[in-house]
Amino acid sequence: MSDDERLAQPATADIDLVTVLHALGDPVRMTLLLSYADGGEHSCDPRGLGLEHLHKSTVSHHMRVLRESGVTTTRVAGRNRFVSLRRADLDARFPGLLDAILTASAAPLP
Amino acid sequence: MSDDERLAQPATADIDLVTVLHALGDPVRMTLLLSYADGGEHSCDPRGLGLEHLHKSTVSHHMRVLRESGVTTTRVAGRNRFVSLRRADLDARFPGLLDAILTASAAPLP
Repeated sequence: MSDDERLAQPATADIDLVTVLHALGDPVRMTLLLSYADGGEHSCDPRGLGLEHLHKSTVSHHMRVLRESGVTTTRVAGRNRFVSLRRADLDARFPGLLDAILTASAAPLP
Repeated sequence: MSDDERLAQPATADIDLVTVLHALGDPVRMTLLLSYADGGEHSCDPRGLGLEHLHKSTVSHHMRVLRESGVTTTRVAGRNRFVSLRRADLDARFPGLLDAILTASAAPLP
């Protein structure tokens, strides 16, 4: 964590399983999750995420759903915002869940 | 598997992660999952599932979403229908995922 401001997000203990599954039960948000799974911070610019076909406001909506569910955190630094996965928080709240989802995402496509 | 008819469901290899997460990202469907997690067959009667406050057609809708996502199978025997979890199929398709979700469902509530 840095001293920069963060957008509103649930405390770790308040992360809700059904809300997390709902957040990840969407193809755009799954695409975002897989980008964030590298553990780094990502700009909110959808370019480079394979989501160039979507309107910026649509991507912003999906990013907000992820953040409000507790999957991601958004750091505000001046006019920039950086999104990253709350892996430690998710692992603490639901041990093994994120790993199982990421593993499943790599299963052979139908 | 029995020789009875089954309602339409995806083949194991066709079960899609995002579709499964979407199916489980709903409080009613999570309640159903936790009932089905005992491994047994369940009638479609919502009584006894803690869903008595919902209209029967609403519960039927949620059961259909679970079946069409690959989470459950529905056996038809005459005029009766019996729902059960496709645990072996889910474990084969996405090893560890169902266990992680069921474990997470038992995490302390916020």
